[in-house]
Amino acid sequence: MSTGHITLAHGNGGRYMRELIADVFADRLANVFLDTSLDSATLQLGSQEILFTTDGFTVQPLEYPGGSIGSLAVHGTVNDLAVAGALPRFLSLNVFIEEGFAINQLERIVNSMAAAARDASVSIVTGDTKVLRRGEGGGLYLATTGIGTRLPGVRPSIARIKTGDAVLISGPVGDHGTAVMLAREEFGLRGDLQSDSASVFPLTSALLDLDGLRFMRDPTRGGIATVAHDIVRQSGLGLNFESAAIPVNDAVTTVCEMLGYDPYYLACEGRVLAVVAESDAGHALARWQALPGGMRAARIGTVVDDHNHVLLHTELGGERFLEELEDDPLPRIC
Amino acid sequence: MSTGHITLAHGNGGRYMRELIADVFADRLANVFLDTSLDSATLQLGSQEILFTTDGFTVQPLEYPGGSIGSLAVHGTVNDLAVAGALPRFLSLNVFIEEGFAINQLERIVNSMAAAARDASVSIVTGDTKVLRRGEGGGLYLATTGIGTRLPGVRPSIARIKTGDAVLISGPVGDHGTAVMLAREEFGLRGDLQSDSASVFPLTSALLDLDGLRFMRDPTRGGIATVAHDIVRQSGLGLNFESAAIPVNDAVTTVCEMLGYDPYYLACEGRVLAVVAESDAGHALARWQALPGGMRAARIGTVVDDHNHVLLHTELGGERFLEELEDDPLPRIC
Repeated sequence: MSTGHITLAHGNGGRYMRELIADVFADRLANVFLDTSLDSATLQLGSQEILFTTDGFTVQPLEYPGGSIGSLAVHGTVNDLAVAGALPRFLSLNVFIEEGFAINQLERIVNSMAAAARDASVSIVTGDTKVLRRGEGGGLYLATTGIGTRLPGVRPSIARIKTGDAVLISGPVGDHGTAVMLAREEFGLRGDLQSDSASVFPLTSALLDLDGLRFMRDPTRGGIATVAHDIVRQSGLGLNFESAAIPVNDAVTTVCEMLGYDPYYLACEGRVLAVVAESDAGHALARWQALPGGMRAARIGTVVDDHNHVLLHTELGGERFLEELEDDPLPRIC
Repeated sequence: MSTGHITLAHGNGGRYMRELIADVFADRLANVFLDTSLDSATLQLGSQEILFTTDGFTVQPLEYPGGSIGSLAVHGTVNDLAVAGALPRFLSLNVFIEEGFAINQLERIVNSMAAAARDASVSIVTGDTKVLRRGEGGGLYLATTGIGTRLPGVRPSIARIKTGDAVLISGPVGDHGTAVMLAREEFGLRGDLQSDSASVFPLTSALLDLDGLRFMRDPTRGGIATVAHDIVRQSGLGLNFESAAIPVNDAVTTVCEMLGYDPYYLACEGRVLAVVAESDAGHALARWQALPGGMRAARIGTVVDDHNHVLLHTELGGERFLEELEDDPLPRIC
């Protein structure tokens, strides 16, 4: 039996969360299908291979520029399926509502969820609602669980990554985290930055026929730094990022400088980080840049041999390690 | 836009919840697969027909005689698949934990979940954890989402129900609701009644090859009275129950008499209410009574023509209507 108590850092996507999942859940629930290092499970049902994934949503505030907890709940699960190489098909929905919640706000949130589902061509096919007593819930929590079908082409996997591969990002990082933070108004800042929350399926499906595609992940909780640490931990390789190449919107840079955050740890909800063979990097970038969601796609780094670290080359010629996230910079961002 | 606010009664399984789902969710999320009158969706994926269902769990206390929120989260979703005529296969798990929660209690709950999954032969294959700020959660909320595969035999459906059919229950009603209520100790009562929480798959699979099987449902929130109202609303038929025939444990009767509850509205988590043709009622009962979970199975009522009501014949020769649940007798029971 462990002693100790849950802290906010157990939910941030970083080291504490990974250790909690490993120590409390992974062994007890172990089965051949469960791989807690992956965001989705691959299941063979008769002749059909499906992907299955789930995500919970506790973002605060519930509505912010560019989206709401409703659209986020669609995009989060759709994107976990998309980056695994699947066609997202069906979602289930869990609603936990606090007593006293305004029904017209709930309607706005469901409208936003419905629009996101239409845009992503997924159907919400089953659901459940629970009401929490006043004071026992943060207004509204959602969970969505998705089923996708395997698309032809590459099966993206960290195991495919090789030294010399290129690391690409489909657009600027940190917009979602920053937009939600600004919407809280607790920092006395305002801005019109929009969350990047969107389905990434057009981006992921554009790369599946490239033999050099290795791996894709949507950098949500913990940002691109956390995806990078998942890659180096599981591959034993290292990653070098070029700071000057990583697209960051001015508003994100400004807010991060004022508040002391690092944009590489902030959540995106409509971006893809992809690892591709050097020989396919140009093709992949060109395909992304031709899509509305990928116009600012960039090559941001390279996989290096045998270092097991995430190194950032800074614009001034220096370098620093991007350490694995421990403390939580921003709770309830997704 | 609606005005108004969420109340506890919106989560009780009765009329307010049904209307909330119809008014806020059903039209906005409408698609050909979504039928909010069912607990699961049927999806065709290639040649494979699967059933897909989800459930949220907010039971308080988190541990009680006969189970915990962990085993309940397995049984609830397994049972929704089982009563639809499926073999439960895979579950996903969402965990919402409040900051400050004791990790050793979480471990006990995950142990109980793991044992329930093993007993029910389902695999928990993917999951997600979110941490709620202290004061923004009731300790622990769970959601599970399940995939099952269609078994050969009858496809149970309210549309198959005919006048003259028999209504069966697989065991005593109200144990779960009463056991949880006693565990709260807020009523100053104590008892050793165990929750009936269990997988009902052995019970449901035992009936699938009976041509006279019409419909099955696990009477959770709102109890057998709420299942009965679902049947009469959707079929246009009526139901007559025989009070003397409905099995109720003495402890449940005693608690209900003391506190003014009606056991027919209390949740079961390991029972099946089945509607079968009169000609198969004896076979169905015999099969259930031969199983460990069905020894006290009984015929409790009959489908009658054209009444659209749920009528209870009492032991003293009187009768009363079992009205549709409105106020919530017992929040956070599942």
